[in-house]
Amino acid sequence: MKENRIYNFNAGPAALPLEVLEEIKDSFLNFGGSGMSITEVSHRSKWFDDVINDAVARTRRLLKLDDRFSVLFIQGGASMQFCMIPMNLLQGDDSADYVNTGTWSTKAIKEAEILGKRVNVVASSEDKNFSYIPKNISFNSNAVYAHITSNNTIKGTQWASYPDTGGVPLIADMSSDIMSRPLDVDKFGLIYAGAQKNIGPAGVCMVIIRDDMLGRVPESLPSMLKYTTYASKNSMYNTPPCFAIYTIQLVLKWLEETVGGLEKMAEINEKKARILYEAITSGEFYRATAAPDSRSLMNVTFRLPDEELEKRFIAQALENGMGGLKGHRSVGGCRASIYNATPLAAVEALVNFMKTFEKKNG
Amino acid sequence: MKENRIYNFNAGPAALPLEVLEEIKDSFLNFGGSGMSITEVSHRSKWFDDVINDAVARTRRLLKLDDRFSVLFIQGGASMQFCMIPMNLLQGDDSADYVNTGTWSTKAIKEAEILGKRVNVVASSEDKNFSYIPKNISFNSNAVYAHITSNNTIKGTQWASYPDTGGVPLIADMSSDIMSRPLDVDKFGLIYAGAQKNIGPAGVCMVIIRDDMLGRVPESLPSMLKYTTYASKNSMYNTPPCFAIYTIQLVLKWLEETVGGLEKMAEINEKKARILYEAITSGEFYRATAAPDSRSLMNVTFRLPDEELEKRFIAQALENGMGGLKGHRSVGGCRASIYNATPLAAVEALVNFMKTFEKKNG
Repeated sequence: MKENRIYNFNAGPAALPLEVLEEIKDSFLNFGGSGMSITEVSHRSKWFDDVINDAVARTRRLLKLDDRFSVLFIQGGASMQFCMIPMNLLQGDDSADYVNTGTWSTKAIKEAEILGKRVNVVASSEDKNFSYIPKNISFNSNAVYAHITSNNTIKGTQWASYPDTGGVPLIADMSSDIMSRPLDVDKFGLIYAGAQKNIGPAGVCMVIIRDDMLGRVPESLPSMLKYTTYASKNSMYNTPPCFAIYTIQLVLKWLEETVGGLEKMAEINEKKARILYEAITSGEFYRATAAPDSRSLMNVTFRLPDEELEKRFIAQALENGMGGLKGHRSVGGCRASIYNATPLAAVEALVNFMKTFEKKNG
Repeated sequence: MKENRIYNFNAGPAALPLEVLEEIKDSFLNFGGSGMSITEVSHRSKWFDDVINDAVARTRRLLKLDDRFSVLFIQGGASMQFCMIPMNLLQGDDSADYVNTGTWSTKAIKEAEILGKRVNVVASSEDKNFSYIPKNISFNSNAVYAHITSNNTIKGTQWASYPDTGGVPLIADMSSDIMSRPLDVDKFGLIYAGAQKNIGPAGVCMVIIRDDMLGRVPESLPSMLKYTTYASKNSMYNTPPCFAIYTIQLVLKWLEETVGGLEKMAEINEKKARILYEAITSGEFYRATAAPDSRSLMNVTFRLPDEELEKRFIAQALENGMGGLKGHRSVGGCRASIYNATPLAAVEALVNFMKTFEKKNG
């Protein structure tokens, strides 16, 4: 492949569109005629204003956000949101509902509890090792919000559709599937996504927040921990993570102008996932780990007959130009993360390799 | 200049060494033979381990840190440290001393007060518009720490030497002069620096913390707001800002291997500042705004006879390939930020331009 690049199946940081990387590279010493690198221009300059405003505008168009929503860029990843959400939205006797679908949900619950907030875990798939997404959940009508993790990168599960909360604002950690499919934003009070899987590099979290949620933010919080600080200053109360926001802007431009929007992106993602799951489930050699109706289109987790074969599979795949196929260290096995930027060709190459490997070792 | 680059006198984000930018550019599609961009490699990979470990090792060597100190990389900039420091270090009746030398100190004080912490402002230069660094300060012997801003980017002041706190651990916001000169770390309990001025791009803050300060951190804080979380996981409890840390690593490599260490860097910085202050103070046309004994070697602030001339000066400088000379919007005037990465040639070009401009307009 070009410049000896590999097909990158990493779970995050993950593959970025090659044309985005090439644009960053080509303009790295002189951004937009500024005579400076994007890493050197002032965040108070017209150059950076254009970048962040375009990133926000493209987010609004792609996700069809109306004026109730603000688009913010906050540092600290999704993990910082685990504490910022309850700090900003729950006061006094307020309570929130959480659905536990694995590691990331568990951490979100833990951070709310550390803060002494009232948390109701209304559903969990822990009974079956988080291999499925719970159904028919009863949410508390007086909950300030209902929190879910839209896609679990480790167990390879994903909400195929979002739950009916009976009007309680939904909050979703969409770190691993934001912009992977069209979104009906009406149910959501807040959406957050660490950028390093589907929309950019590590170092920034996109937060989309509705005005009624912003209205709940107490004045008494430290400035950097309040959503209102970011909303009132277009995420530039202090110096934002300029390079990460710039990369997001280019990824969103690629999504709109090269891919053609989220409907098109969803079609491609469905096709990638379909041929990969078919390769896994068509025989006895490979085995998918997630329940059929809960399988993620982003992180395809699977096992081979034994761990020795898995090691060999991962090593030989890398020799064949396919990297990042090792499962999360907490669960083992194999995982192919096939986010937006992973091309169909990468999945086809992987499927071919899987067939060859099975023939030799099956 | 190469690729039509300008001489960049921005206050931050600011100039980076050209050879660092070139190395990033050259390896941007394939980092270290990984077949991936640095923005695409896993933070749990050997590639990134080498990056972060080298960045820490170089920081230790350059600042001569002993084993009591941990080097952390935290998101949110120095502004996040304004709240993290009091959250982590002050409990119950604990109090801290703060010296107020302008905007950034004022914000640090405000954030500690928002948290309801006991803050003593033991000295301030507000009486003279923050144009000097206070002397002969009496610190409280029972203070947990004494906080200063080592360099004020807006008013162009800098601590020439650090105050005697009578044994109270010093905490310094060194965002704008870290690594600009050798450091006697013995006085310090904690040092922090947003990277985007002297050591990297926006999006990461370096925090150097001594073990007795780490020992004060309460268990009850959210994970992402506790120094102990970062110290116990080599700053990788969650996905760190990989690209920003990588750039820091390259800047520190440049400091050690090209510049030759902090003594050499300090010599160059002193020379740059000397010729620029000489150009400003040698006649009546330009006027330095900071008190002579408090003048910053990093941010040289000055005025011209009137604002109309200042506008013309800034505009004509840009036409001549010198950018970023406008003073901070809160104070006006002119400012030349001459951090580590600003070459002597840039300052010489500016001085020549200043002489020509004075001849035409003086």
